[in-house]
Order: sequence, then structure tokens, then C-alpha cells
Amino acid sequence: MRFLGIDPGIAIVGFGFVDKIGNKVVPVQYGCIQTEAHTPEEERLLHVYEGMLQLIDKYKPDTVALEKLFFNRNVTTAMSVSQARGVLVLAAKQRNLPIGEYTPMQVKQAIVGYGKAEKKQVQEMVRMFLKLQAVPKPDDVADALAVAICHAHSYGLNSKLNEVLRK
Amino acid sequence: MRFLGIDPGIAIVGFGFVDKIGNKVVPVQYGCIQTEAHTPEEERLLHVYEGMLQLIDKYKPDTVALEKLFFNRNVTTAMSVSQARGVLVLAAKQRNLPIGEYTPMQVKQAIVGYGKAEKKQVQEMVRMFLKLQAVPKPDDVADALAVAICHAHSYGLNSKLNEVLRK
Repeated sequence: MRFLGIDPGIAIVGFGFVDKIGNKVVPVQYGCIQTEAHTPEEERLLHVYEGMLQLIDKYKPDTVALEKLFFNRNVTTAMSVSQARGVLVLAAKQRNLPIGEYTPMQVKQAIVGYGKAEKKQVQEMVRMFLKLQAVPKPDDVADALAVAICHAHSYGLNSKLNEVLRK
Repeated sequence: MRFLGIDPGIAIVGFGFVDKIGNKVVPVQYGCIQTEAHTPEEERLLHVYEGMLQLIDKYKPDTVALEKLFFNRNVTTAMSVSQARGVLVLAAKQRNLPIGEYTPMQVKQAIVGYGKAEKKQVQEMVRMFLKLQAVPKPDDVADALAVAICHAHSYGLNSKLNEVLRK
């Protein structure tokens, strides 16, 4: 089963595709969609949207997950990232992908086993987990992979839970 | 020339199409796209996006304008509205429409002639301006028409300004 994790943004959208084979999670493809600063917002949104559709069509995930956004301070940034998130969710929905959402704490819990882990710890665990030589850069890519791994773990658990509940 | 004004939202998206004929601005069609609460976010975003594409394809505006969002307090609301705004901007961009953006103050200035006018004043001016029997409801529709009228005014001015500058 193939999982796509997305770290939304307007300048950089991190993405990570992972396969879950048995209990193993292996990387398939990861990277980021980048948009140029100083270009109109609508062009950047279109670029993010079309880029994600292309990735979905190429790597054909079974489900997608995004981190739930939390912003305490900069509302302008929050709104800008949210606009990008909107077109990313739309792209996933148009391809009929089930969409998962996790809080940063849930992601950390799934990866490090501790909801208040440092960003660096999460990234290092992602690297070890996927047997990569280095932490993927920029951070957005590592974050997207973390969400994908979290989704791969939780998805199995949720399915099992649903199975139990159906009995 | 036909102008579309949009008041973005996730529950209600107000829209207003107006034609500018000489110095007159006349209403063409107005209303709102509504989404049901308690349905998944992705379904609501898809509904908003597809609804807007249908409206654009039916009423064929030459340009579109949205109010620039300002939020001081509720970041959660800001993010939710911004996601919807993202898919609305995307829809306009996919139809190659030039996109304008106005601050609430610019809209008030254009409609009432005073940037700090009350909401009710703006709505009443919209009604008078378009020779409507009553203020369109819900507020989102009147707001969308206000943006459309503001855009119709400014567009002419901007075009003239560009003409002068080109000489």
C-alpha cells in the first residue's frame, strides 16, 4: 500500500511517497514542489496544484495525509499556507484519495514515540526509518516523509480497529 | 465588460456578476455557493471549486476580484476561509481571468466614498447602486457585489492610468 505525505506551503511543498510492505515502510520518492517568489499568488497556487496532480498521477498513492496546521503568531503566513493547503486537498480529493490529517504531536508520537520531540530528532528518525544516508533537505521534505510514515502506521492501526469494531 | 466579485468562505461563498456599460454598473447575477457543515473539508472545498468553475463558465466574466482577507483574532477561521480562497483563486486562474484584490477599506472607499464606512452603509449603497429592491442576503452576497462594483470602478481607472502612462 502506498502513502503520500504532504507538508503544505506556498514557496515549498514537501512530498514523500512511502510503501508499506508487511511491517516495513520503504521510501518510493520524495522531494518538493517549489514556486518562485515575486510571482503572482494565483500562478503559485496553480503551480502547486498542477505539480501535485502530476505527482499523484505518476506515483499513484492509495491515500494521502497532511499535517494539521497550527499557527499562533503570523496570521498572514497562516493564510498563505492555508491557500496552498486548499488546492492540495482539492487535488487529492479530485483523485478520490482518502485524506488523513495529523497534528504535529501525533506525527512526533508516531515517529519518535514522544509527542514533544525536537524537530531534529524527528528528522533523524525519519532518516533511520527509511534507511537514508542523509536527512532529506529542505526540512519540508523530511516533514512530509514523517507525515507519510505516521499515516502508514496509523492507517494500519485504524483499519485493524475498524475490523475489531465491526466484529 | 463583465466583472465577478467573490466573498470567499467555506460555508458560504458570495458571488456577484455585474456589467459595466459606459459609466453604468448593472447586476447580472448574484447569489452564493453553500456547503454543508459536518461534511469533510475536502468535499466542501471540491464543492466550492466546482461551483465557481460552473458559474464562471456560465456567466463568462472578463475579470474577477476578491476581498483581501484580514483576520486579527480567530486563526482557525482565517485558515479555513483561506483554504476556500485558494481553490477559488485557482478556479479563476484556470479560466485565465485577471484577478484583482482589494482591501476592505478600498471597497468601502469605492462604494461609499469613505474607507471606514459601516457594513450597513456599504450594503445600502450596493442596493441603490444596482437599483435592487432589497439588500441581497446573506451578507456574503452583498459583500461580493460590493467587491464587483469596486473592481468595475477601479478597473476602468487603472486602464486609463495605464493608457496615460503608455503615452
